[in-house]
Amino acid sequence: MAPFQPADPAYDSRVRASFARQSMMKLLGASLEQVAPGAVDIRLPFRADLTQQHGFLHAGVTTSIADSACGYAAFTLMPPGAAVLTVEFKVNLIAPAAGETFVARGRVLKAGRTLTICSGDVFALDGDGEKHVLTMLATVMTVQNRSGLSD
Amino acid sequence: MAPFQPADPAYDSRVRASFARQSMMKLLGASLEQVAPGAVDIRLPFRADLTQQHGFLHAGVTTSIADSACGYAAFTLMPPGAAVLTVEFKVNLIAPAAGETFVARGRVLKAGRTLTICSGDVFALDGDGEKHVLTMLATVMTVQNRSGLSD
Amino acid sequence: MAPFQPADPAYDSRVRASFARQSMMKLLGASLEQVAPGAVDIRLPFRADLTQQHGFLHAGVTTSIADSACGYAAFTLMPPGAAVLTVEFKVNLIAPAAGETFVARGRVLKAGRTLTICSGDVFALDGDGEKHVLTMLATVMTVQNRSGLSD
Amino acid sequence: MAPFQPADPAYDSRVRASFARQSMMKLLGASLEQVAPGAVDIRLPFRADLTQQHGFLHAGVTTSIADSACGYAAFTLMPPGAAVLTVEFKVNLIAPAAGETFVARGRVLKAGRTLTICSGDVFALDGDGEKHVLTMLATVMTVQNRSGLSD
Repeated sequence: MAPFQPADPAYDSRVRASFARQSMMKLLGASLEQVAPGAVDIRLPFRADLTQQHGFLHAGVTTSIADSACGYAAFTLMPPGAAVLTVEFKVNLIAPAAGETFVARGRVLKAGRTLTICSGDVFALDGDGEKHVLTMLATVMTVQNRSGLSD
Repeated sequence: MAPFQPADPAYDSRVRASFARQSMMKLLGASLEQVAPGAVDIRLPFRADLTQQHGFLHAGVTTSIADSACGYAAFTLMPPGAAVLTVEFKVNLIAPAAGETFVARGRVLKAGRTLTICSGDVFALDGDGEKHVLTMLATVMTVQNRSGLSD
Repeated sequence: MAPFQPADPAYDSRVRASFARQSMMKLLGASLEQVAPGAVDIRLPFRADLTQQHGFLHAGVTTSIADSACGYAAFTLMPPGAAVLTVEFKVNLIAPAAGETFVARGRVLKAGRTLTICSGDVFALDGDGEKHVLTMLATVMTVQNRSGLSD
Repeated sequence: MAPFQPADPAYDSRVRASFARQSMMKLLGASLEQVAPGAVDIRLPFRADLTQQHGFLHAGVTTSIADSACGYAAFTLMPPGAAVLTVEFKVNLIAPAAGETFVARGRVLKAGRTLTICSGDVFALDGDGEKHVLTMLATVMTVQNRSGLSD
């Protein structure tokens, strides 16, 4: 993977400020972990009120943190003043989302002027190590000069 | 669309009982609306704590209700004793998820013995009518005879 | 579905001229059928040299005509001078691609300034009617003012 | 990535025999390169009759070899007598498919009893090295005991 050069040296604080405005992340109990050029990790402890009918995390929960990780991974490389929007994503649920803690790793595969392609992977962590539970392939858009939209 | 014949006449109560165990739906404030063979609708009122950084519903929220609507639409056609698992889905975010109420409509496109293909569409409702905000294409699995897994 | 207003009154001849340059369509024996604002149909007769190991059309063949149908459906709505590029797509293979003739129907779901979302469906036709064999959800890009790229 | 243990020691010859029956691969001029447990590479030289309107390989061509690479990567791990079917895939077109030769690398991410998840990546090769042009995320099915279907 090529190393990425951020277009805005303040990328770290911009990601953290935008993430703090995602009230959904607060509702889920998710927190930003790593923020690096082209790479963002989000951590989420298991909670019983985030589950589906079998007691595993709902796919919408693991998808939420994978989507935010992908979007902010793309955002680390965007120019000052840009806003980030998810265009689309595809998710494969690899294993039941059972574990104590989950981490979503968003990584930029290709950064274009308008569109950025990212992978997102969610791992369940417990005493035994980590298990791969979800993989995402996402397309993220850089939005510039659109009135009222900024990050 | 072909009319579907449910394999279990008790499909309605089984869907409602399983949905009631999805604590994530309760956290989001989502409720089951229509349940019919091959078709399930889920309703969600807007709430500020479900949003992303621009004040729209987080993609993970609209994806959550679309995923549950697709999974339960498939589940209406499954035989007694089967459990439902989402294999994978792809989502396009068509418009910002702004509105007073949202409805996710899960519909079975093709029901197979093991795999069922569903579409899911989320609409934002307000005084002006409805706006299409998300479309999902999902693959759902019928799981039978797996110890400990039932719906 | 909303009726679409083409931005270029010459959309029909532009689609046909661009399609004629897709040598892959000629190799497959595919032809343009319907061209309307937001809707393009492509027809393909079965041929034994287009098959996979079980004697059905290879998924790459049905995907090829679905992709071209989606791309050109989006292209019907693009302004003069624009070029069309597929960003991504997802395909579900609904049934084995067995039949005498196949038709791919590309339809615009949402036309944006930069990105257009399309559905693509492939049907197998024979004496008994039509069977749904593939469904595609695609994102297509309008490219303007990029040196050397036009349709 | 975990090392995979093939369930059938004759996996290599079974993959090669099945690939030889895909007449579409012959039409495209594609050949099998690497065959290893959980990993299959397919090579394709550029040809002008495989292109779209801008002179790049048609997305259906790169998708075809990625799909076959994913399907056969999954097939290397299937038990004797099983047949392989692609359930669905999603593709991102990362860069224009320009080059002298293309290689599609199919890799198993997770092999389950019924479903296998694979990634597929297509690279364009020329004197300057390789360029990533397509990434695929695919779901492949192991079919057993279905009358008339074998590989």
